[in-house]
Amino acid sequence: MPNELDDLTRRLRQFARDRDWEQFHSPKNMAMALIGEAGELIEHFQWLTEEQSYRLPPDKLEAVRLEMADILIYLIRLSDRLDIDLMAAVEDKIVLNERKYPVERVRGSAKKYNEY
Amino acid sequence: MPNELDDLTRRLRQFARDRDWEQFHSPKNMAMALIGEAGELIEHFQWLTEEQSYRLPPDKLEAVRLEMADILIYLIRLSDRLDIDLMAAVEDKIVLNERKYPVERVRGSAKKYNEY
Amino acid sequence: MPNELDDLTRRLRQFARDRDWEQFHSPKNMAMALIGEAGELIEHFQWLTEEQSYRLPPDKLEAVRLEMADILIYLIRLSDRLDIDLMAAVEDKIVLNERKYPVERVRGSAKKYNEY
Amino acid sequence: MPNELDDLTRRLRQFARDRDWEQFHSPKNMAMALIGEAGELIEHFQWLTEEQSYRLPPDKLEAVRLEMADILIYLIRLSDRLDIDLMAAVEDKIVLNERKYPVERVRGSAKKYNEY
Repeated sequence: MPNELDDLTRRLRQFARDRDWEQFHSPKNMAMALIGEAGELIEHFQWLTEEQSYRLPPDKLEAVRLEMADILIYLIRLSDRLDIDLMAAVEDKIVLNERKYPVERVRGSAKKYNEY
Repeated sequence: MPNELDDLTRRLRQFARDRDWEQFHSPKNMAMALIGEAGELIEHFQWLTEEQSYRLPPDKLEAVRLEMADILIYLIRLSDRLDIDLMAAVEDKIVLNERKYPVERVRGSAKKYNEY
Repeated sequence: MPNELDDLTRRLRQFARDRDWEQFHSPKNMAMALIGEAGELIEHFQWLTEEQSYRLPPDKLEAVRLEMADILIYLIRLSDRLDIDLMAAVEDKIVLNERKYPVERVRGSAKKYNEY
Repeated sequence: MPNELDDLTRRLRQFARDRDWEQFHSPKNMAMALIGEAGELIEHFQWLTEEQSYRLPPDKLEAVRLEMADILIYLIRLSDRLDIDLMAAVEDKIVLNERKYPVERVRGSAKKYNEY
């Protein structure tokens, strides 16, 4: 089934081809570029309390929004280079997570979140 | 306009609520979880040559696929916590990139990619 | 002047040579390995409040300690591959930071930390 | 036994205190700041081949050098906040690595490096 990430995948591939950039877009390099952007994202949050992180001032929110776009762009590019269907991967992961963390076991458990 | 990430956003939000996990899902923590997964992703590539990174053995490819799913899941969760429309953000970023890297200037330029 | 990081640098270089691993230790790969370890480090903190992060249970503290060792090991290896004197670099950075953040301007300023 | 990282630890602590910054320097935040710097480091390498990464142009090498200083600074700050002796941690980790990767087993083995 077609999905909207497919459309983005095609457009981002064309963007790279038009600029002769596919030579730089190995999976290894895409994984590096992705974490580089994730590093820029985290810099926006590192001195904020968790509370403050919910209400970013407008200019910071816009910067965060564009960092998140960069991350998704590199994630899509990486999925294209490895021929991975991202949406199917997420569906599979949700099923795995539902099995790993069944509601009845997790909810109301005294066990700490980070112990799972 | 509705999009398929909207559907995922709702389902992942419900998943967290069902487990009483929203208390842990501050934007600050989501940014951390995202880069943690990006770190797991990069570990799959760090000893491979760029060439090798294109042809991962099946078990490694499957592991990479699920790490990528985790990254998208946290990216969607973060967008939900900050009320950001990820698809619109990507569209805006593509426009910015087209302006920043016009084909005629980039293609065939002797300038190195990493100098842009 | 000799320093104790020099001694570590030599020992870690020998460790790699003894195993025929220097071929994998390009600066690019060392930077990847370093951030992979930093990702493992952050996973220990992502669900903790800032308060909780000061008092880790003993097993978690030990795990954090070894992740930090891994980061320093890769940092030293990278400095060796690029022939960088890490201690001199830190001294230079401290001077730069003292100029950038003079005590009289920073202390007691209403300006938020993250705006610097 | 005293070591030169001890001296740096004290100076960096004083630097933070003089600016009233210790309030922001929770272990959680230090781990974030560290990976943020590691992200800046990796951005210098992401479009380079492994070969190119050995011979950085002078301005890039200087930038990499200062990113590495930042990483060491945050690593030392984190060790201070958690009362961890970094040098002892590295010594312990080297012993663990020597046991995990004995020369006779690793060297000349057909097994790929990334399979260990």
